[in-house]
Amino acid sequence: MWSLPMVTKTVLREFSVKTTQREELIELTAQIDREIQASGIHTGLCHLTVLHTTAAIWVNEAEPGLLDDLLRALSRLVPADGEYAHPDGNGHAHIKAGLIGPSKTLPIQHGRLLRGTWQDLFLAEFDGPRERKIALQLIPT
Amino acid sequence: MWSLPMVTKTVLREFSVKTTQREELIELTAQIDREIQASGIHTGLCHLTVLHTTAAIWVNEAEPGLLDDLLRALSRLVPADGEYAHPDGNGHAHIKAGLIGPSKTLPIQHGRLLRGTWQDLFLAEFDGPRERKIALQLIPT
Amino acid sequence: MWSLPMVTKTVLREFSVKTTQREELIELTAQIDREIQASGIHTGLCHLTVLHTTAAIWVNEAEPGLLDDLLRALSRLVPADGEYAHPDGNGHAHIKAGLIGPSKTLPIQHGRLLRGTWQDLFLAEFDGPRERKIALQLIPT
Repeated sequence: MWSLPMVTKTVLREFSVKTTQREELIELTAQIDREIQASGIHTGLCHLTVLHTTAAIWVNEAEPGLLDDLLRALSRLVPADGEYAHPDGNGHAHIKAGLIGPSKTLPIQHGRLLRGTWQDLFLAEFDGPRERKIALQLIPT
Repeated sequence: MWSLPMVTKTVLREFSVKTTQREELIELTAQIDREIQASGIHTGLCHLTVLHTTAAIWVNEAEPGLLDDLLRALSRLVPADGEYAHPDGNGHAHIKAGLIGPSKTLPIQHGRLLRGTWQDLFLAEFDGPRERKIALQLIPT
Repeated sequence: MWSLPMVTKTVLREFSVKTTQREELIELTAQIDREIQASGIHTGLCHLTVLHTTAAIWVNEAEPGLLDDLLRALSRLVPADGEYAHPDGNGHAHIKAGLIGPSKTLPIQHGRLLRGTWQDLFLAEFDGPRERKIALQLIPT
């Protein structure tokens, strides 16, 4: 009997998340870990990119008070009622999204995300509600 | 007749961009897509790093008003005329660059950047005019 | 005599850094370059992730005045004595960490980090002193 190593390939696929609020953070960790498990990848990179300019990928603690704190802090730094040249009325949402950034990369170890005890992945919505597309890349290394 | 799969290799090369203003955003998307096409890479990662501490890589919409909004918002958050211990008079430019970050990573799919309808890649200059070096990494996966 | 190419494999390991201040920046560049050298990787990606929610990875100049400027600028933007719903009294540290981000990726070229003259990698502590775990990923490409 021969035992072949499991052959794993890069995953690159898109999935959608429906947001329901003007601004909110939606946890993605459990879904991403299921995708990694389905891929059979043991060690590698997980790269997540939101394909929009008024949303971002956030990594931090999933404590509800903190999620409110983040949205409030960003709204104080980049106020919705500030003066913006951008014509669509959502200049502040673009700038908030850009400060957090459209992508995050985390290691994959032992077939799941390598992350700290309090670290979770979130979609950050700054101009919802909308349907948001996210590109998920799982790369064995 | 045999058909061999196209062999692709990692690209890692530097290119330069001349900025002409104190602060500005210079679009890089078209050039990056040409580099991906030349590389023959179908699926992979594109990783872009500016090799300076007063410039950054920005991903967002290429609408001119919004680009002005971003520069104004950052100058309000980190004023050029604030007090800085850094001796070169450009402490604010370092901090702005660090908030945006020196690198961005986007997926490559179907031989070009996988990005949202409104997403473009920019060099963000915060202490120009200068000649800026950017490292481009294209990795087949 | 045959000459075999050096076989390199992905490195994924954790290391710890003890911080000694409430807030500080601790340079990591020299240690990372030693790890790359030990790995035998000539060309690739270096991906660094701090496994905590009140610390970040920062890339910028190692000038002491500038490091103070950064901590002051962030404390002005996200004050420690602001009002936060997060119950642990460190809401500001979470938000600062999230603005800078938990990860940075730099190219590896010629067996060491490809970086600009003034670019260094730092652990950014926002809620110390603590022992911080960092995941180091070195990927040949």
